[in-house]
Amino acid sequence: MSRILTVAAAQLGPIQRDESRASAVRRMIALMRQAKGHGCDLVVFPEAALTAFFPHWWMEDEAEIDAYFESAMPSNETAPLFAEAQRLEIGFHLGYPELAIEGGRKRRFNTAILVDKSGTIVGKYRKIHLPGHAEHRPDAAYQNLEKRYFETGDLGWPVFEAMGARLGMMICNDRRWPESYRVMGLQGVEMIVLGYNTPKHNPWAPDHDRLGEFHNHLVMQAGAYQNASWVIGAAKAGVEAGVDQLGGSCIIAPSGELVAQAVTEGDELVFARCDLDLGKSYSRSVFNFAMHREPQCYGMIVERKGAVIA
Amino acid sequence: MSRILTVAAAQLGPIQRDESRASAVRRMIALMRQAKGHGCDLVVFPEAALTAFFPHWWMEDEAEIDAYFESAMPSNETAPLFAEAQRLEIGFHLGYPELAIEGGRKRRFNTAILVDKSGTIVGKYRKIHLPGHAEHRPDAAYQNLEKRYFETGDLGWPVFEAMGARLGMMICNDRRWPESYRVMGLQGVEMIVLGYNTPKHNPWAPDHDRLGEFHNHLVMQAGAYQNASWVIGAAKAGVEAGVDQLGGSCIIAPSGELVAQAVTEGDELVFARCDLDLGKSYSRSVFNFAMHREPQCYGMIVERKGAVIA
Repeated sequence: MSRILTVAAAQLGPIQRDESRASAVRRMIALMRQAKGHGCDLVVFPEAALTAFFPHWWMEDEAEIDAYFESAMPSNETAPLFAEAQRLEIGFHLGYPELAIEGGRKRRFNTAILVDKSGTIVGKYRKIHLPGHAEHRPDAAYQNLEKRYFETGDLGWPVFEAMGARLGMMICNDRRWPESYRVMGLQGVEMIVLGYNTPKHNPWAPDHDRLGEFHNHLVMQAGAYQNASWVIGAAKAGVEAGVDQLGGSCIIAPSGELVAQAVTEGDELVFARCDLDLGKSYSRSVFNFAMHREPQCYGMIVERKGAVIA
Repeated sequence: MSRILTVAAAQLGPIQRDESRASAVRRMIALMRQAKGHGCDLVVFPEAALTAFFPHWWMEDEAEIDAYFESAMPSNETAPLFAEAQRLEIGFHLGYPELAIEGGRKRRFNTAILVDKSGTIVGKYRKIHLPGHAEHRPDAAYQNLEKRYFETGDLGWPVFEAMGARLGMMICNDRRWPESYRVMGLQGVEMIVLGYNTPKHNPWAPDHDRLGEFHNHLVMQAGAYQNASWVIGAAKAGVEAGVDQLGGSCIIAPSGELVAQAVTEGDELVFARCDLDLGKSYSRSVFNFAMHREPQCYGMIVERKGAVIA
């Protein structure tokens, strides 16, 4: 069995508020065909890839909110993506807002799925690190209402055997937290795929704005290296519903090196032949966890949520 | 009270096997005086700064091993460093191999201390992530016998209020592990100081050699950013007892940016005015732990040492 997985990060330019899911799916199918044309096994689409990123504005009407969520996957509107994947025999990763009825109540998550080359959903993840706030902040240039619209993910960070690899998922803000990578590293993950919608401007910390791209890559490069895993990040880029979003979609090797990156703010495909065994020289030496980790000293990481100043 | 702490990383060139502690201390005093001349409040010396880095070779004779350890701090040979710090009113950080008699038995640790401007030891840390191996590997270009010569540190990662700052310590290989930073981040650390002896060549993973400097900075930059803390790294550099050591001593801001770095492989001082409040825009926004961490999902980090493939 070959240990090469050829993977594309499919960056999406802006999806405006009046753009239909059908249109977004057509754009993704075009990128999927490009990916297939370049011999890719897997194409990674962004977080919440079917619509404009609605947590950037305040809504109160339940029906209006629900309209941005998917209650079935595939749905009528996303079925063409699954059909095309099956036809082309290419896997994909898709982020979407999920509306689930569980235990008799409506639940909303920021979700991603992994679909194999037969068009079958083989993995699901619900975003754990929800950024932003729950309350209305009309004073800011935009809202960051993920804590309002989503529940914290309840599936952990599972790792899936698919397409000959051990694959894991995280979403957007998860990538800034080393814990996200580590939980998958401890399951021997070989490739982590993720999508993100990250504004260039942070209204609550504008001094960070000039560093957006640096921070974006820094955390993924460190997470890759420290866990001997590939990391694939697919962005939504460009000005969408008035919010200028960071691009910088990228493919990062287990060495931490940037192997490929997007250079536009539109729909753009970048890809690489990813040797799934490349991480082994790390996981067998400096990051041989069984040899070198000291979990008896890490207790505070789970015992404490916020910082405590003694 | 000013929130500026002016800090120097005092890189040391090689200390050969026949160089005395007195000589090494003289070199450190010269760097300390330079630091004072540039208005520094604190000077950070490397790991095991008093001798050649002996874990790079095999020893069996207990007395020969013990000769590299300090059983008192200050000792006759290190007292001049403390006296000069007191005279100049400058704090320092010093790494040294520690021989302690505890519970009636001899214990050896890879230790670092923090000394304030009065020459008083105000903090102590014992290295937790010991790299390398315990067994003889005479086939390799050099040995990495920290697991033979040292016990795992038993003091955790305490944070100390000193010189108007909340300071923490780690040592060398600790810096590659995000857990080290996080435990201190969860105590509101404002500056982490560390020393390192890192060979350029890894006999067990030579394909990493070309990336030594990149990895060195990557992990410290990510740790700084993800924990809103300054990170000061002081290296032993140059060819010492046949082992070519990485320099790259550096000062990294809470933004993750490299503020100062050494450019030689000898004794070299780099320094910066460190605004201890610079991290606050991070710890109050994207890395507001109380708002955004999800420790209920991190259990595996403490429950599992090595990776487990399901």
